[in-house]
Amino acid sequence: MAEPIRVMGISGTFSSDSANGRLLQIAFEHCESMGAEWVIWDNSSPLPFVGEEGCWEDTAVKSYKEMASASDAFILSSPEYHGTMSGVMKNSLDFLSYDQTSDKAFALMSTLGGQSNSNTLNHMRISVRWIHGWVVPEQVAVGNVRSAFNENGDLVDEKMNQRIRGMIRSLIDSAEYLRSKR
Amino acid sequence: MAEPIRVMGISGTFSSDSANGRLLQIAFEHCESMGAEWVIWDNSSPLPFVGEEGCWEDTAVKSYKEMASASDAFILSSPEYHGTMSGVMKNSLDFLSYDQTSDKAFALMSTLGGQSNSNTLNHMRISVRWIHGWVVPEQVAVGNVRSAFNENGDLVDEKMNQRIRGMIRSLIDSAEYLRSKR
Amino acid sequence: MAEPIRVMGISGTFSSDSANGRLLQIAFEHCESMGAEWVIWDNSSPLPFVGEEGCWEDTAVKSYKEMASASDAFILSSPEYHGTMSGVMKNSLDFLSYDQTSDKAFALMSTLGGQSNSNTLNHMRISVRWIHGWVVPEQVAVGNVRSAFNENGDLVDEKMNQRIRGMIRSLIDSAEYLRSKR
Amino acid sequence: MAEPIRVMGISGTFSSDSANGRLLQIAFEHCESMGAEWVIWDNSSPLPFVGEEGCWEDTAVKSYKEMASASDAFILSSPEYHGTMSGVMKNSLDFLSYDQTSDKAFALMSTLGGQSNSNTLNHMRISVRWIHGWVVPEQVAVGNVRSAFNENGDLVDEKMNQRIRGMIRSLIDSAEYLRSKR
Repeated sequence: MAEPIRVMGISGTFSSDSANGRLLQIAFEHCESMGAEWVIWDNSSPLPFVGEEGCWEDTAVKSYKEMASASDAFILSSPEYHGTMSGVMKNSLDFLSYDQTSDKAFALMSTLGGQSNSNTLNHMRISVRWIHGWVVPEQVAVGNVRSAFNENGDLVDEKMNQRIRGMIRSLIDSAEYLRSKR
Repeated sequence: MAEPIRVMGISGTFSSDSANGRLLQIAFEHCESMGAEWVIWDNSSPLPFVGEEGCWEDTAVKSYKEMASASDAFILSSPEYHGTMSGVMKNSLDFLSYDQTSDKAFALMSTLGGQSNSNTLNHMRISVRWIHGWVVPEQVAVGNVRSAFNENGDLVDEKMNQRIRGMIRSLIDSAEYLRSKR
Repeated sequence: MAEPIRVMGISGTFSSDSANGRLLQIAFEHCESMGAEWVIWDNSSPLPFVGEEGCWEDTAVKSYKEMASASDAFILSSPEYHGTMSGVMKNSLDFLSYDQTSDKAFALMSTLGGQSNSNTLNHMRISVRWIHGWVVPEQVAVGNVRSAFNENGDLVDEKMNQRIRGMIRSLIDSAEYLRSKR
Repeated sequence: MAEPIRVMGISGTFSSDSANGRLLQIAFEHCESMGAEWVIWDNSSPLPFVGEEGCWEDTAVKSYKEMASASDAFILSSPEYHGTMSGVMKNSLDFLSYDQTSDKAFALMSTLGGQSNSNTLNHMRISVRWIHGWVVPEQVAVGNVRSAFNENGDLVDEKMNQRIRGMIRSLIDSAEYLRSKR
């Protein structure tokens, strides 16, 4: 029997109880229901900036890259700041390379304080292509994020939850296809 | 007599002796020859990540924002990593807001290890608009950056140097126009 | 006394009674109230496709390019189709070049059938830079466009109307500045 | 035995002896060598503009959409004009919808008169996602296109030819995967 697909979530914010952390948890529940395993990089053990002295030998960087190497698929969830992904998310991507990401599947989510927009999703899509990842066409942007979750941390809009479910289905299926080709 | 235009350079790398640091120095020489003053944020006193505990009260962040408030114009110079600006550059932009940047002039430069491309310039252009900056149409991408400078740190390609000069002329002129409107 | 600024509107749809035609009319009313003149290219005399035999000698193309040459500023209004500007808008831009657009001011508007998004505005901003136009940071996207206008053809959302007014103010001011530099 | 994959090429120029026409022919030779069939939409029977009266009932539009419906994969090849795909290409995309393109594979090529750039590829990638296509990460931009082909119409740069070959391999494989899911 095939090993389960391992999905790595990367959060574009520092705090795991952020909206992006919650979105990743919701995505992970769908992963579990479909038989996939998941791990999260939530910056609780922070990466340095690329270019800081010794950054490539940093313990957190090594753990991060090993986690990425061991994963078949990725979910990126970033807040949109100033019309694109957060610096935290971009710095996390900067530590990845072809070695960890080629021919692996990616799904993208973003959160916005105001009305929904696709800038972050678009720029992450272009960036992931540069490290030879396959981004599924399904994607999720959650606008007005401060009122998007109820007291249980669930999305108020069940349709949005179903979109995430569909996106995760697509992510896992394509991760299986891509694993068979590697 | 009008006060000179103050130009703030922001580097998308950590080290000021990087290619981006050199590009900024070249741009500053043109600023000086046109009577403008300049300051640089070169990450020698590093910013934290947006979202780190206490980040908005950080001393470096305060100095950075004060430098931005006191400036009339900005030059952003970022390496292109994975098809867009560096995480260091984006995190620096994340600490700015309308308050420091509205109706101020911006010029954009990028460096690439391989062949030239405009992804970083495009994404910075979109991002700067979100904080209501005015980006001049002139822009500079330096490809194959490891062979772009001679032993004196000058650009091997004099045309590139002239492009930077034209861009700085445009930056200062539009900064003067925009200052007259603020 | 200075000649009035001449603003050219270009519609990304074929029919001038389209939502984009209406948006342009609203923008033109603001132009008039600020003393600017306007002309519109609304495709009532259609351009050919770039690359059709004889396209560069086409009568409509010549009128279009003369209209552009005689203008100080441009307003582009395009529907968003499939995540970017319409083919009609892009083909219209393809007939312009540096000769008609360098150092002239541009303002951007877009309409969407569903929720608002900035793809069309972003891609037009990048494209206009390529022909050396100056795009003002103010921009307008009208989502859910079928319910955006009342029976008089006015925008239901007065704030949106005020955004257009502010954008036109910015367009005319920067057109005057740029004209003084040409 | 499975039916062969049918690949549809769409050219962003009017003339099939254009550089984009030649690139598509090169891509088709690789398709054939891998057992795939191909068809081309080269604008020899031109589409109208979206929005022209009667455009959706136009005979060429109907043939075009039927060709798309019957295809498993697409290759888009567009010149880069003014920092993005041609109006001809965008208008061709505007006539497609989810019905013809959902969960089908796409590969992207572009040509540039001057130095290489990725704007057209990036904007096509975003646009194709909007019609739910899967774009393979491999892509090809041919700069300085006037000297890119020898007298036989082959690419002077054999590496570029190999990149196209790799891209087509990826396109066909993913088209097979996606067909198995539809």
